Amino acid sequence: MKRFKIPDVDKTLDLAILSKIDNLNKPKGSLGELEGLALQICKIQQTLSPTLFSPCHILFGADHGIEREGVSASPRSVSWQQMINFTQGGAGVNMFCRQHKFDLYIIDVGIDYDLSAYPAIIDRKISFGTKNFLYEEAMNKKQFEQAINIGCDIVNLCKNKGANILSLGEMGIGNTSPASVWMSLLGNIPLRECVGKGSGLSIEKVEQKYQVLHNAITRFKGVNSDQTPLRIIQYFGGFEMVAAIGAMLKAAEEKMIIIIDGFIMSACLLAASKLYSEVLNYAIFGHCSDEYGHKQLLKLMQAKPLLNLNLRLGEGTGALCSYPIIESAVRMMNEMNNFQDAKIDKYF
Amino acid sequence: MKRFKIPDVDKTLDLAILSKIDNLNKPKGSLGELEGLALQICKIQQTLSPTLFSPCHILFGADHGIEREGVSASPRSVSWQQMINFTQGGAGVNMFCRQHKFDLYIIDVGIDYDLSAYPAIIDRKISFGTKNFLYEEAMNKKQFEQAINIGCDIVNLCKNKGANILSLGEMGIGNTSPASVWMSLLGNIPLRECVGKGSGLSIEKVEQKYQVLHNAITRFKGVNSDQTPLRIIQYFGGFEMVAAIGAMLKAAEEKMIIIIDGFIMSACLLAASKLYSEVLNYAIFGHCSDEYGHKQLLKLMQAKPLLNLNLRLGEGTGALCSYPIIESAVRMMNEMNNFQDAKIDKYF
Repeated sequence: MKRFKIPDVDKTLDLAILSKIDNLNKPKGSLGELEGLALQICKIQQTLSPTLFSPCHILFGADHGIEREGVSASPRSVSWQQMINFTQGGAGVNMFCRQHKFDLYIIDVGIDYDLSAYPAIIDRKISFGTKNFLYEEAMNKKQFEQAINIGCDIVNLCKNKGANILSLGEMGIGNTSPASVWMSLLGNIPLRECVGKGSGLSIEKVEQKYQVLHNAITRFKGVNSDQTPLRIIQYFGGFEMVAAIGAMLKAAEEKMIIIIDGFIMSACLLAASKLYSEVLNYAIFGHCSDEYGHKQLLKLMQAKPLLNLNLRLGEGTGALCSYPIIESAVRMMNEMNNFQDAKIDKYF
Repeated sequence: MKRFKIPDVDKTLDLAILSKIDNLNKPKGSLGELEGLALQICKIQQTLSPTLFSPCHILFGADHGIEREGVSASPRSVSWQQMINFTQGGAGVNMFCRQHKFDLYIIDVGIDYDLSAYPAIIDRKISFGTKNFLYEEAMNKKQFEQAINIGCDIVNLCKNKGANILSLGEMGIGNTSPASVWMSLLGNIPLRECVGKGSGLSIEKVEQKYQVLHNAITRFKGVNSDQTPLRIIQYFGGFEMVAAIGAMLKAAEEKMIIIIDGFIMSACLLAASKLYSEVLNYAIFGHCSDEYGHKQLLKLMQAKPLLNLNLRLGEGTGALCSYPIIESAVRMMNEMNNFQDAKIDKYF
């Protein structure tokens, strides 16, 4: 796999950053999570006066072979229909992008439908969906490399437009299934705790989904001697998910802030961190989703998401919703007086 | 006390609103808290297409006689110093108002300092701070009426500017003390569970604060035959807090959305609801603060705040931070396609 050079976050400025935060005109610690967030962003950017430029939202779309096993409440056709809908401005992701002034990039990495008539969709289709990992690897090694490279290319596009902060989202009916398998195998968590209802399965259907995934893992373990993270990611992954991993690693290499959405993107980050653990330093967790398993996945990465609004729409909407809080943390560092300037008795 | 006519929220449109929400192009319920929020706002405005106009942030400032008992980590002088600081743009509240495009109204209802040299502060000073409720009523009945009326006047000002949504904040060193007493007496909750560290008391000082408040309540109960909510509010209240109650009741009368901040403003809403329970229908809870007791106070009002960022700065900053989420709920109703328009197979 392509090599990334992800810089370790420098600690030289830590004391200066903390001292600036503690001397702002407020009781120490009284801006809560904003203060930790400000520290993280200042460290990433190695400055006491951080900035946010040209935020971009990258939405990768692809279909999944495993969907054929009835693991999703929604039909496969919803993937391509939503991709087209995203180009027309009426989806959840569109409204959040407008509200928070994100440029939206919609990329077809493997939707099972010809979308070439829609120029607003960036056409990087690898194949018309992955294969069914109940019987075979979802993608081969060449396709895996392609997906990683697509992620890098899109981040470069954003970088060239001046962005220093990204959020990531996905469209792919069935993708809670590969996410659950990754979580279980890469996080060493019993599969049962990783499987949930996705976009709305009944309890019986969740059980059926569990059985399908359990069988897929058993088969994988039986026939594969290579059980490294890299192999697991490639064997079970979706094209949109591997592209997201490529984007995360490239963004970290470029010292960009990465806003992590819900269950799927957290699973992608977990996977990315198994390849390069330093990527975690660049991630801000936007939202704890309603999907069963997401809480534990966050715990595994010692993450405390900014929002807890029970969203489970996907598309990266949870990440987008958290953006104003990130902006507040940055404003805090740049716009708040300190006690001296404000001529206020320091509280204690 | 002045009479308010707070309309009951009409239920006629409920089914139509819910049906619109459920038919937007997303899995049912997948926008989580935004959906309940949208329902509430649509009900308040009696429409399927709600709007937010000219948001205003009202910040009432006053000092507290009880502060003389050493119940606060911060000295009284911080109140007037911060009031001046608010006029200069460098405080927490200023940066959040700028970020979320709120008009800021700063009102002196009882700061213990002459602020008449600062025209940006609306001068409605009732007195240079309340009296010490350990020994006597904090304010008399006339002052109580004055404070209520000031709240109404400021809401009228906002209303005339076209606002249909308000947030409220406060500046008043020592005001967690009256808030704790209100919570205990009006909410029927043991005082111990209502007292916390405010802007940063040590454990020993919290115990001392508890004793002071306990003694004040004992004295009040001994010498007052009138122990109605109205009397409790007047006896222990701060001018900024009673003005906030007036503002809440007036805003509800005008069918405006009221964003509730942390511990102090929640205590004010509890008090307002003891006078007119209908006011609760117009309240959106912005933030669960770090102040001990706030969680239980929220529970008492069956409130689930939008944010949980451990803020404890006051000034209404928790309310302001939640605004983008309220805006998202409104955008959802106006900007999202339904399944028919989006040409998407309804998920289930």
